[in-house]
Amino acid sequence: MLTLYTTPGTCALATHIALEEAGATFELVKVDFSQNAQRSAAYLEVNPKGRVPALVTDQGILTETPALLLYVAQMYPAAGLAPLEDPFALARMQAFNSYLCATVHINHAHGRRGARWADQATSHADMLQKVPQTMGDCTALIERDLLAGPWVLGDRYSVADGYLYTIARWLKGDGVVVADFPKLAAHMAAMEARPAVQRMLAAY
Amino acid sequence: MLTLYTTPGTCALATHIALEEAGATFELVKVDFSQNAQRSAAYLEVNPKGRVPALVTDQGILTETPALLLYVAQMYPAAGLAPLEDPFALARMQAFNSYLCATVHINHAHGRRGARWADQATSHADMLQKVPQTMGDCTALIERDLLAGPWVLGDRYSVADGYLYTIARWLKGDGVVVADFPKLAAHMAAMEARPAVQRMLAAY
Repeated sequence: MLTLYTTPGTCALATHIALEEAGATFELVKVDFSQNAQRSAAYLEVNPKGRVPALVTDQGILTETPALLLYVAQMYPAAGLAPLEDPFALARMQAFNSYLCATVHINHAHGRRGARWADQATSHADMLQKVPQTMGDCTALIERDLLAGPWVLGDRYSVADGYLYTIARWLKGDGVVVADFPKLAAHMAAMEARPAVQRMLAAY
Repeated sequence: MLTLYTTPGTCALATHIALEEAGATFELVKVDFSQNAQRSAAYLEVNPKGRVPALVTDQGILTETPALLLYVAQMYPAAGLAPLEDPFALARMQAFNSYLCATVHINHAHGRRGARWADQATSHADMLQKVPQTMGDCTALIERDLLAGPWVLGDRYSVADGYLYTIARWLKGDGVVVADFPKLAAHMAAMEARPAVQRMLAAY
């Protein structure tokens, strides 16, 4: 049995989509960020980093979206959610996920989580005003170089697609117009047509 | 044949260590950050993100440290550099690498690369002064929760160890005293006793 700790609007949606695509049986636990529940003693027992997602498995607790996505793909191989048989293709998928995790998500986080990296309100305002530029640059790179189309890896759907969709949902709020990026816009529409994504969205 | 694009002092050392541990045949190309060569047209052809590492393989070019580390482990399975046969253990390793990539490395980068996320000099100074705190917090979490010891995964050496060592080398410059963290200090010493690490260091 799996339990996913998640919060609406966060990157945990990527793992939620992967679990739905895999046909996994899992429970959802929503961590209420409005109550700062991610910093509660109870939740820090689950994930000492105080973040979502966390996935409770029979063997222990796992964290970090790129790790969870590969884990789900490995545990449900029949769903074909990653090119597990091809190290090069898998590395392309992992590189894409790593870019979302360590560059795109980080740029986004500077809009609301600037206190992680600086103490002054003026610094936080400076960070916030730069988000449309950094997220726009990332989106342009994804559109030009990384999103093969129709899926991230080309004809093959993978867990990277759910991760891209999760982060693409942040773009409007970050001042980026998705319609300016036709491949990405088509990707979002194709994702929203998938029953697994519809089930995920209905859960929040 | 493999070619690793690397720069002294960067996270590319982690992949360099993995290639040495794997016994791989590879060429090194050093990208001169002092000349801003990572932004040159020639290098942007290799990696449009303008970063190191990049690994040129017979199938194409790969980027992002966590992806490269898993790729090296998969391509040289005899070296035993990752628990490829155990999805849970592999996910623990990937989660560790993701934490280094998306949290620890990012905190470090705020000391010198603040212009990625803010425009004002006062913001950059604010970020820089916070680095000892954020890197100290990360180091404490690694020491307490993530570094099983003697290696990241316990008794089993993996590519995560080379990544941890690569980032631990930044701590002194970031105002963190490694000697305050006995498991990490022992890890660094054990890494420096490995011939693969000594060969890597001798190449710069």
